[in-house]
Amino acid sequence: MRLYNFSAGPSILPKEVMHQAAEAVKELDGSKLSLIEISHRSKAFINIMDEACELALRLTGLEGKGYKAIFLQGGASLQFLMTAYNLLEKKAGYLNTGTWSDKAIKEAKLFGEVIEIASSKDQNYNYIPKDYTISSDLDYLHLTTNNTIFGTQFKTLPETDTPLVADMSSDIFSRAFDYSKFDLFYAGAQKNMGPAGTTLVIIKESLFGRVTRSIPSMLSYEVHASKDSMFNTPPVFAVYTSMLNMRWIESQGGIAALGEKNAVKSTLLYGEIDRNSLFEGFANKEDRSDMNATFNLKNPELTDAFDSICQTAGISGLKGHRSVGGYRASMYNALPIDSVEVLVDCMQLLEKNH
Amino acid sequence: MRLYNFSAGPSILPKEVMHQAAEAVKELDGSKLSLIEISHRSKAFINIMDEACELALRLTGLEGKGYKAIFLQGGASLQFLMTAYNLLEKKAGYLNTGTWSDKAIKEAKLFGEVIEIASSKDQNYNYIPKDYTISSDLDYLHLTTNNTIFGTQFKTLPETDTPLVADMSSDIFSRAFDYSKFDLFYAGAQKNMGPAGTTLVIIKESLFGRVTRSIPSMLSYEVHASKDSMFNTPPVFAVYTSMLNMRWIESQGGIAALGEKNAVKSTLLYGEIDRNSLFEGFANKEDRSDMNATFNLKNPELTDAFDSICQTAGISGLKGHRSVGGYRASMYNALPIDSVEVLVDCMQLLEKNH
Repeated sequence: MRLYNFSAGPSILPKEVMHQAAEAVKELDGSKLSLIEISHRSKAFINIMDEACELALRLTGLEGKGYKAIFLQGGASLQFLMTAYNLLEKKAGYLNTGTWSDKAIKEAKLFGEVIEIASSKDQNYNYIPKDYTISSDLDYLHLTTNNTIFGTQFKTLPETDTPLVADMSSDIFSRAFDYSKFDLFYAGAQKNMGPAGTTLVIIKESLFGRVTRSIPSMLSYEVHASKDSMFNTPPVFAVYTSMLNMRWIESQGGIAALGEKNAVKSTLLYGEIDRNSLFEGFANKEDRSDMNATFNLKNPELTDAFDSICQTAGISGLKGHRSVGGYRASMYNALPIDSVEVLVDCMQLLEKNH
Repeated sequence: MRLYNFSAGPSILPKEVMHQAAEAVKELDGSKLSLIEISHRSKAFINIMDEACELALRLTGLEGKGYKAIFLQGGASLQFLMTAYNLLEKKAGYLNTGTWSDKAIKEAKLFGEVIEIASSKDQNYNYIPKDYTISSDLDYLHLTTNNTIFGTQFKTLPETDTPLVADMSSDIFSRAFDYSKFDLFYAGAQKNMGPAGTTLVIIKESLFGRVTRSIPSMLSYEVHASKDSMFNTPPVFAVYTSMLNMRWIESQGGIAALGEKNAVKSTLLYGEIDRNSLFEGFANKEDRSDMNATFNLKNPELTDAFDSICQTAGISGLKGHRSVGGYRASMYNALPIDSVEVLVDCMQLLEKNH
């Protein structure tokens, strides 16, 4: 039986990417050596890293625009403190749209004054704040473009002259976007980019040297950028597999083409959530994420019945996060539309049975 | 043609470990899902992480002795600053045995006073300092047990009541050792433990809470330990493959049995270096590393001839680090003795030809 993997992350990657990655662990491109036993200073691996960085800039339309792509470790969680360590001299603004923004705020407070410009905490983060004023004295404004847990997503970006810093961990490469509106954005790989274990940071080179404090080498964007992501041994497998996945994204027509497919998937699922008398969506309609759909049974007593239908159908990873409960269907780039169709069938079967 | 991989790191791992890791990237244990597409909060991955931590403590004989094993990201380079961030309140001592110690010292200086207790810089780090006094007012004493670049290795540890902190990146799990002499030791995986992308830290729980400064969550040993290495998404592939490799180490009879094999390999190679009229070792004999043998041609004009012999024989990764030049043969746990025999044959063939 085939499984339909809706896991929120680490999450589904294209079958061919996983297959190629596995083959490279056995032997890299006929070299008689495994990907994981060669030096990161070898020509073979330097080419992989270079291609990964080039692909990241090309996919986001930022080639030749003064940006640098670097691959680090530590996930978005390390970026919560690195952004502040590198950029927060006096005061920074944060838009709080849930757990991840909240964690970013907590870490930033160790480095300077943090202003919560707006928050949707009053309604358990089920919406994206829209009416707020961005003061002009901020070192940067930080936002989380997509909230994996609550299933909300910024549809437009704040208009501001303040440098914009974004955590794009769960929606990078998922939709057409003017990435040049950002001065820095980062993403843990394990949703739309690759396997867990590496983090992509794309930073405008003009952001280097913004603070007076001393920055430890491993936490300095400038150090990593100056060494082309090779200041120390990079996470070889995660970078290689991310590179394969970015090649796949390009082969699919790039971000814009995938964005259209993602919209079709999410429209299909949200359509059913709204139509089906047994379910209700969690996030405000206008702020619904194309990546993570959060929804609940109106009658929790049907939980066992729905879970059983889903299990029989081969659906995996649909359980909602404990902060929201219910269900969460993560529909990243690699999720085929037939997975969503199977889920919709399950929802309709439940309605028919009850 | 088979290759003999002497790479200094990332480096050779057992064939069966690489094969099993590749299979898991295709499908994990009949789950119909790839290792890299399952949630790190799934039972399957929690079991993997738990087993990895247990194996690390069991192999080092530290089970039930008040230590915690945690798997992090960022390599030894991140540990250079994390050790100081977490432990350096006033003053720390460092033994400087080369590049890696030097980098550790540089990062630690951002957090407090750093005393270089001893250094072998005067002779390009070709020996391990032995006569020095450890003052009694240090927060900790830091050393690098094996120097990958210069090919030196501590054969005995300093006797001191000062908490001992060690970078064991290149000789962890390679020899019988009283690991309880350390209060904290760490190792980037990519030599004797697994693929690049994770770092093992084993820390005495009594070391938590030693400094008054605020520590960002991702840099706090206590935070990671309290969350059993799952504070954030761990590097799934690197932890899994390290777990497989630690299982392999156990199946080989553990660290002591591998230590004996490693001694046989290094004795064979150093014997030839000393016997062969064309070569000379770099490191002082009594401080020679069992992991990384550094040696040079007495007559550099024979370089092309020797390189050609090695290439024909299928030897890979033998080039010395630029700080030393010449050759470096890394003989980690997974390197079979026949690789060393092939190298010795090459050295003898050169001698015969010239």
